[in-house]
Amino acid sequence: MTLPQRTIVVVGGLAAGPSAASKAARTDPDARVILLEQSDAISYGICELPYYVGGMVRGEDLVIHTAESLKREKGVDVRLHHRVEEIRPSARVLKVRDMNAGKVIDVAYDRLILTTGATPGRLGLEREDARNVFHVRTLDSAHQLRHFCDGERPRSAVVIGGGYVGVEMAEALRMRGIEVTMLERDDLPLRSMSPVARAAMRDVMEKNAVRFCGGMAPVALGSQDGTNVTHVLTPHATFPADLVVVATGVTPNAALARDAGITTGRHGGILADAWQKTSASNVFAAGDCCEVRNVVTNGWTYVPLATIASRAGWVAGTNAAGGRAKFAGALRATAVKVFDHEAVRCGLSESEAKDAGLTPVTASITATSRVGMMPGASKLCVTLIADKATGRLLGGTLFGREGAVLRSHALGVALHQRMTVDQFRDTDLAYAPTFSPLWDPLLVAANALARELQPSGRP
Amino acid sequence: MTLPQRTIVVVGGLAAGPSAASKAARTDPDARVILLEQSDAISYGICELPYYVGGMVRGEDLVIHTAESLKREKGVDVRLHHRVEEIRPSARVLKVRDMNAGKVIDVAYDRLILTTGATPGRLGLEREDARNVFHVRTLDSAHQLRHFCDGERPRSAVVIGGGYVGVEMAEALRMRGIEVTMLERDDLPLRSMSPVARAAMRDVMEKNAVRFCGGMAPVALGSQDGTNVTHVLTPHATFPADLVVVATGVTPNAALARDAGITTGRHGGILADAWQKTSASNVFAAGDCCEVRNVVTNGWTYVPLATIASRAGWVAGTNAAGGRAKFAGALRATAVKVFDHEAVRCGLSESEAKDAGLTPVTASITATSRVGMMPGASKLCVTLIADKATGRLLGGTLFGREGAVLRSHALGVALHQRMTVDQFRDTDLAYAPTFSPLWDPLLVAANALARELQPSGRP
Repeated sequence: MTLPQRTIVVVGGLAAGPSAASKAARTDPDARVILLEQSDAISYGICELPYYVGGMVRGEDLVIHTAESLKREKGVDVRLHHRVEEIRPSARVLKVRDMNAGKVIDVAYDRLILTTGATPGRLGLEREDARNVFHVRTLDSAHQLRHFCDGERPRSAVVIGGGYVGVEMAEALRMRGIEVTMLERDDLPLRSMSPVARAAMRDVMEKNAVRFCGGMAPVALGSQDGTNVTHVLTPHATFPADLVVVATGVTPNAALARDAGITTGRHGGILADAWQKTSASNVFAAGDCCEVRNVVTNGWTYVPLATIASRAGWVAGTNAAGGRAKFAGALRATAVKVFDHEAVRCGLSESEAKDAGLTPVTASITATSRVGMMPGASKLCVTLIADKATGRLLGGTLFGREGAVLRSHALGVALHQRMTVDQFRDTDLAYAPTFSPLWDPLLVAANALARELQPSGRP
Repeated sequence: MTLPQRTIVVVGGLAAGPSAASKAARTDPDARVILLEQSDAISYGICELPYYVGGMVRGEDLVIHTAESLKREKGVDVRLHHRVEEIRPSARVLKVRDMNAGKVIDVAYDRLILTTGATPGRLGLEREDARNVFHVRTLDSAHQLRHFCDGERPRSAVVIGGGYVGVEMAEALRMRGIEVTMLERDDLPLRSMSPVARAAMRDVMEKNAVRFCGGMAPVALGSQDGTNVTHVLTPHATFPADLVVVATGVTPNAALARDAGITTGRHGGILADAWQKTSASNVFAAGDCCEVRNVVTNGWTYVPLATIASRAGWVAGTNAAGGRAKFAGALRATAVKVFDHEAVRCGLSESEAKDAGLTPVTASITATSRVGMMPGASKLCVTLIADKATGRLLGGTLFGREGAVLRSHALGVALHQRMTVDQFRDTDLAYAPTFSPLWDPLLVAANALARELQPSGRP
């Protein structure tokens, strides 16, 4: 008996989409796998865009797959310039605008995978689409920004938003010798990290000539020539700018799903279960268009990161093609290079823990990245957070010149395993003087936190 | 009611001893804590000795505590030149030779902590105590070796033993411009690591002008002048040498305990339970004189590492002083710098897994340490081992130019938690292009191993 050939349609081609399509084609080699993408490019290194803008990475290296290579290597039928305008789940059909042919066609599916991504946040201000204002999210926008820098030699830039994309873009522009001012609503950059890390990363930016201005929300984009933005206005001050980068986060592209009656959540993203199935039969979803389960709280959260997109796409592709895979949830693990420093957080921040109804207890320590006397040793700061009631680890932040991000992997595993601080403190970790102090900074922090958690009166 | 003051005596002052004594004094501030050490120094960085020999570290930086500072800062009464000659557990008394006074005295204890350490392996050959043959284990022997190198300007050295100490010493001698030949009984160095790592580390050594000779067991130390060793003889070849370093492992100093009727194990070390209690009442033990429980198998193993000594000493000191702490076992986690590379193993090797009655399944992958296009990215090789029957992770080896050792921390936590390969593969780890590929090499290896573990017939 031969089963009829299954048609699996994937909508969106950046991170989750190619992952889902490739995995679906591998799981069911007989399936017809179609990927619809509205733009003219798929599958590029979105996380590397700041390094491309900064000149550390070449444009051609950003491309992971072209439409042709995804077809040739993975057997996926990629259709560029195809924009899905409507999903009809009951009929299992999509209304698709073929922008090459200039008409709307029907595309039928047996299984649908939505990987429609996210859209960069906008300020909602006049002149936001001026040619020297950039919302860097796509390959195209990065090309435009790099081209602008190469051609116009801007001397000053304002980066709006102090999240990790803003920080990376600030560094990229400094690499090009541009004076950079960062405007952030909050007092400090990198909102989800520990207060001590946030202050330290602000200082690192300032030391590298990025002027950080906290408590600043832009209210207008001014222009002296009527075309380009020439200054950014806040209620407190005016900042001249030859170019403006807007990096105020992203919002999920879920309107298509919502219009089709598919359930979305309070962050505006599609809700998919651990098998990446949505509320509509035969419709899966993955990536930045979705909310995900937080590993620590099991609640819904929005984590638009490439790792999550790739992994959830892999799960969606497997299941859509008749296999069986499960998504284990997201840690909200975020790593960022800030000039010669690195910073990382994973799990919950203190305020996220409170929002989840927990009582966070925190300990922060400063240790060295290697044995202090070894060449290259530098300060490493670790903050760990636990739940007062159960002693369970909830999250942490690490920063320093070296050894922060890779150490966070151990914390990530511990959070997945719902380890207590006492259990974590007891782990035996590899040691040599060139790599770590005798007691790894993670364990020193766990020790300090264990003391904080002890009922008062005990030593 | 006041309890009578407790006397806690610690025997041995290198790593476990000062840790135990300090912790005991902190746990019971009313206790009298005495540390007896037969040599003239305590508490120095034994792991840093190769870097001292190599000239990267200054001698004065090696000292962690002097007798005076341990007294002043931790309240421990340190007595140098005091050698314990007999333990009488029933009388709770020690026979101690006070080498300053030249007499044997009685020292009474309420609680005894044995941290008598280990002795470097000897070849059992004539001329092994010649002045240009070094068994580098103590501060004194490192001083002698460094002094010899400074004074006599040796041009060639033979390092006997290809374990991590031998590898570190070979590098240290190369740093001084000395020609180095390494003789190792086995075909490759670093016996407990994966075969691929062992071959790669041999190549790294050879590339750095350390001549590696496998399958070589020395049978004699020859001398042309009757005083210094001038060549090392094996059944196959003769190797000229201006100096010889013997690095053939260590054996536990457990005779004192054994003579007192305290139980020792098949590796020759003292057996202490998870509270570091020995078979004799009121006698604790910790460090290189002890065997320890292997986290993965729960069997006894011998792991003479400073991390274990420090941690077990901490547990022994806590419990001896009336507190309560437990030692969670050892992973056999070993990290080593080999010139511009790093290598690490933790958990079981394939042969250790077989010895434990398990059926190991292995996968090895090569990935990049960062996203391939990022500056600084280099090859990283990961081998993971799991149990065929249960899918549980058993151990692994990582090596490369960067990012091997700190990544092993995550594997260490996973081994403590008895995670399966499938669970480990599902962990969400922090990512940014400058620190890691999108799928961390650990996860790529776990993926490959998960495929190996699948019953044949499934994709």
